[in-house]
Order: sequence, then C-alpha cells, then structure tokens
Amino acid sequence: MDASLAPELLALDWGTSSLRAFLMQEARVVASRHSGHGIQHLPAPGRAGFEQAFAGIAGDWLQQWPQLPIVASGMVGSAQGWREAPYVRCPADIRALAAQSVSIASGLGPDVLIAPGVLLDEPGRLPDVMRGEEIQIAGALLHDPSSAARSCIVLPGTHSKWVQIEHGEIVRFATYLTGELFAVLGKHSILGRLMPESSETQDEVNANANAEAFELGLASARASKPGDFAQQIFATRTLGLTGRLPPAALADFLSGLLIGHELVSGLAGIDETARVPLIMIGDPALCQRYAQSLRSFGKSADAVLDNTAPVGLWNLAQAAGLLK
Amino acid sequence: MDASLAPELLALDWGTSSLRAFLMQEARVVASRHSGHGIQHLPAPGRAGFEQAFAGIAGDWLQQWPQLPIVASGMVGSAQGWREAPYVRCPADIRALAAQSVSIASGLGPDVLIAPGVLLDEPGRLPDVMRGEEIQIAGALLHDPSSAARSCIVLPGTHSKWVQIEHGEIVRFATYLTGELFAVLGKHSILGRLMPESSETQDEVNANANAEAFELGLASARASKPGDFAQQIFATRTLGLTGRLPPAALADFLSGLLIGHELVSGLAGIDETARVPLIMIGDPALCQRYAQSLRSFGKSADAVLDNTAPVGLWNLAQAAGLLK
Repeated sequence: MDASLAPELLALDWGTSSLRAFLMQEARVVASRHSGHGIQHLPAPGRAGFEQAFAGIAGDWLQQWPQLPIVASGMVGSAQGWREAPYVRCPADIRALAAQSVSIASGLGPDVLIAPGVLLDEPGRLPDVMRGEEIQIAGALLHDPSSAARSCIVLPGTHSKWVQIEHGEIVRFATYLTGELFAVLGKHSILGRLMPESSETQDEVNANANAEAFELGLASARASKPGDFAQQIFATRTLGLTGRLPPAALADFLSGLLIGHELVSGLAGIDETARVPLIMIGDPALCQRYAQSLRSFGKSADAVLDNTAPVGLWNLAQAAGLLK
Repeated sequence: MDASLAPELLALDWGTSSLRAFLMQEARVVASRHSGHGIQHLPAPGRAGFEQAFAGIAGDWLQQWPQLPIVASGMVGSAQGWREAPYVRCPADIRALAAQSVSIASGLGPDVLIAPGVLLDEPGRLPDVMRGEEIQIAGALLHDPSSAARSCIVLPGTHSKWVQIEHGEIVRFATYLTGELFAVLGKHSILGRLMPESSETQDEVNANANAEAFELGLASARASKPGDFAQQIFATRTLGLTGRLPPAALADFLSGLLIGHELVSGLAGIDETARVPLIMIGDPALCQRYAQSLRSFGKSADAVLDNTAPVGLWNLAQAAGLLK
C-alpha cells in the first residue's frame, strides 16, 4: 500500500454476482478491489456472510484507516441484502437518496451507509424500479453537471434503463429486459436451436455476415408495429431454416432485433423538440454496440461513460455529510 | 374392434411430442389412438423408430385392413422426421399440399403420404413457416367451405399462427411465440421469481385477482407502442414488488400481456373494412382464453373449432386421389 495515500472514503458497489471496493480521495479512485462475493454468492448465510465478505475485501484497509467513512450501493440494499434500504419515489435526487440511506454496523470501523433504490409508481401506469443505477447516474451528473439540468441517461445491460433527468432529479425511467431476453431466448427457447454451440472462429466473411444480421435485426425492429415482438423473434429461426442467414449470424440478428426494439421505445420517450443530451453509461463493448445501433437510427450519444459508480458513491457520501 | 367398420383412411397427426392415429370413414373419425411417440420421443433411433412407433399404434388396424390408404402431417415431415416433405410456398391450397406430399414405405401395408409444411418467404420481409397447422386449416375449410373464400384463422398455442385465407389458399401468415415466451420467461427469467412454485388453491378472491391481473395485462398490451414489449414484461416483477398484485396473479398478468400483444399485432393484419370472419382452432380452454381476450378488445371469434387435423388429413387424402 502506498504510504502517501490519505483516502477519504471507502465505497462499495455490491451487486448480485460481484462486490467491488474502492478507496477514494478527492472524488477519485486511488485503489480498487474485486471479489465474487455478490449477495447471492456470500461465504456464509445471512448477516455473517456480508460481514465476512466485507472483512475479506476491506479489512486491512480499515485496520490502516479505521475512521474511513463507508458507503455502499446496489443489491446490498435490497430485501435480500445486508439491510434493506426501501425505494425512494421519483422524482429523486442525490439529497433524497442520501436522506433515505440506511446504516448497518459492519463489525469493522464505522457503520456502512447503504443507498436506497428508486421507484416509479404512478397511478394508471405500470410501476418500475432501479437499484444501483441511481448511484451510477449520480456519478455521471457529478462528472458533467450540465447534464443534470436535462438529459436522458441510458444504461445498457441485462436490465437496461432509460432514465430522464430534470434539474438533477430522476423524474421517470423505464427498464428493458433486453440482455436477459437475449440470454434466456438463446439458451432456453427454440430460437437457440439453430445457433452453433460455441462461437465459431471470426473470419472476415463471418464478421460481415454477423454485422449484416445485426443490421437486419435493427431494421426489422425499426419497422415494427405494436405487438410485433413475439412474431419478429421467430425469424431468428426462420432466417436459419431458409438459409437466408448462416447459423453463426442468428444470434446477431436476435441481438439487433432486441436492441432495436429497446431503441424504438426508449427514443420515443425522449422529448425530440428539446434536444435533450443522451448519455450512455456501461461496459465499453456493450456501449459501442448501442452507439452503433443509435447511428443506424440516425441518432448519436453525446457522451459514453464507463463505470461511474465510485464517483456516484462519492456524491452520496458528500450529500450525506460524511466527507470533510 | 367393431366388425361393421369399413374404414377408408388411416390418418396420422404426428408431432414433436405425440402421435395420434385416426381410422376414418366418410370424413369422420370412427376410432382414434394416442401415443407418446412424438418424433423426439421415438422407441428407437432413426427410421426404425418411426416404423416401430407406427406399427405399435396401427399394426393391428393394417392387419385387418391391409389396403387402407395412409396420410400423415406434422413434424413427421420435417428435416428431423421420417422423410422430409419440403415446405410449399404461399399461396398454397390443399391441391398444392397434396401435390407436394412425399411417400415413405411404412413397412406395413401401403406407403405413408406425408404432408409438407408451408413457407412464407417474400423479398424484403422476414420469412415464416408452419408445419401441421396447414392440415388443421384444410380441415376447417372442409368443415365450413364458406370461410374458404376469405377468413382469418387463428391457432393459439406455443407458436400461435394467424393465417389469412383467400379463395381456399393460405396467402400469408404470422407466427407468434406467445406460449413459448410465457413458459420460458416464467421458468428461466427473473419474471418467475416472485411467482409461487405451485399454483395455489383457487378460491373466489384469488380467481378475481387473477382475472383482474389478466385484464391489466391485456389493457397494457393494448396501450403499448412499438418496442414496449421488453419494458412492459418487467412489470410482472414490479407489480409484485410493489404489492399491486398478489404473487399468485403475476402469471396471469404476464399471460394477458403476451396474448394482448399477439392480438394487437394479429388484428392489425386483418383488413378491417372487409369484415373477414375470424375462426379459432385449438385446445378449448386456450381458445376460451383467447375468445375472452378478443372480447376485451371489442372483437369476437365467428367460430371456435377443436381438433380439425383428422378432417384436414381426409381433405389431403381426397386431393391426393387416395379415396374412392
């Protein structure tokens, strides 16, 4: 450990399948660690599992800096988490998140402050929830305060989020099961039957076929009418049966179709006339796929950000008054 | 066996998971049998498996009536079947199906005539296929020749079909993976997590909650815009998380949402001005669920038919010149 470090915050991004810990100083990460102890993969059941996972990833840091404030976000605050931090209703900003965070004794050093998720629950509409993304958003808004005035933040993934920001608040959002549908349909439905077991070697011919299949999926989604989804996905099979696509390109068609449907619906939720900036946060390879898809739709992202959770946790700690 | 029988046809409805055999006389079923020997559950691999399954279900019938013509439809004619009967292109009527049927020696009595499936493959559109439904349709059209002039035939199920008929021909159709999506999402996605393992006892309160959840799914689908599918299904989880629906009603919401999406898209494919009759074929309980859904959409089915495959196979045998 670098003896010159004077960290001000220990930040935990604690999800279902992994745990990330960040030592932070002046809103920047100075050291980070990763473990597989997501809340569904703890070393022991119940509270002891959380304490052991926490001691394992950050015990020596707390020995060295025993007064370090600690904040956490993600599924660690769910009903299955260390302690439940109930959802905050929209509209919600970082002050609301900080005010409704909950504390839990960590067994080491100070308590851990756990961020709540956000709930959209308006009469006459289907409800929606997020947990973890609100902190990534808080990071993006600290990174670029101008986007806090008004923006649409897209977080592609297993459960993609499209989040409308106004005056620093999450005012509404929509979750799309795009990534989960891709995984489940490819693995458990008839649509995966013609797909090759392992991905074949990508030569140039394959790469072209795959790119064309992806574009065909995007174009099909763009041409879709309401209710067409369950019909269009069947083409993942029929394009293979008829030989119009090679087996190795069928997954790309399905991917394009799913991302395309998400874009059609997500873009329709943005006020066109207001020229709202579109900001993407997430895994760089996935963001690149989404950015390419946006270009096919004649749109573009104004910014693409990688992991903003640590900065978001810094923002939370600041709003909670934990930083000097 | 009734000695007064003088059957004219042995008809086989041979799908993926089951085999049904019908002795027919004057276009009516006079005896029927069922076995679990669908093409993916044969008693032996390859051709021998088909021969053994066939001999098992109909061997004694052919001993008694060795000259009986034999016809078959369903997955038995697929690439994984007894012998492949390649798809016939739209537009296709019963004469085209008969002309492009293929024969295979059964090992007992006459050859088996296997019906082809139907392919919709037009430039600039996603392709679609059916195999088995074309014979059910041929049965419906023989049953009610007036509907052959023009009708929309809906076959709800794992892979629902919406089929446009003009002048006795299948002119175009669309497959919806409604039933498969319901099964796969309930079993393998996050949407099934809050659903109870086993269906609870249906008391009156539950029945009301389930009916309301189903209607909420239908109404949500009806209000959907393009691309909304992957977002709306997430409500199967959030309606449970927020307590707006009891766990036992979540599957009903998902069912209503999926059937509703199918109706929105399927009904849009029917020429409204032409007052085309809508005919439903399938499992009575499922047809009832669809009929109820149609009523919620202000529509109704003009006829609901149960298993029309035997009559369709009779129609095929007649068109193939196998009947006296």
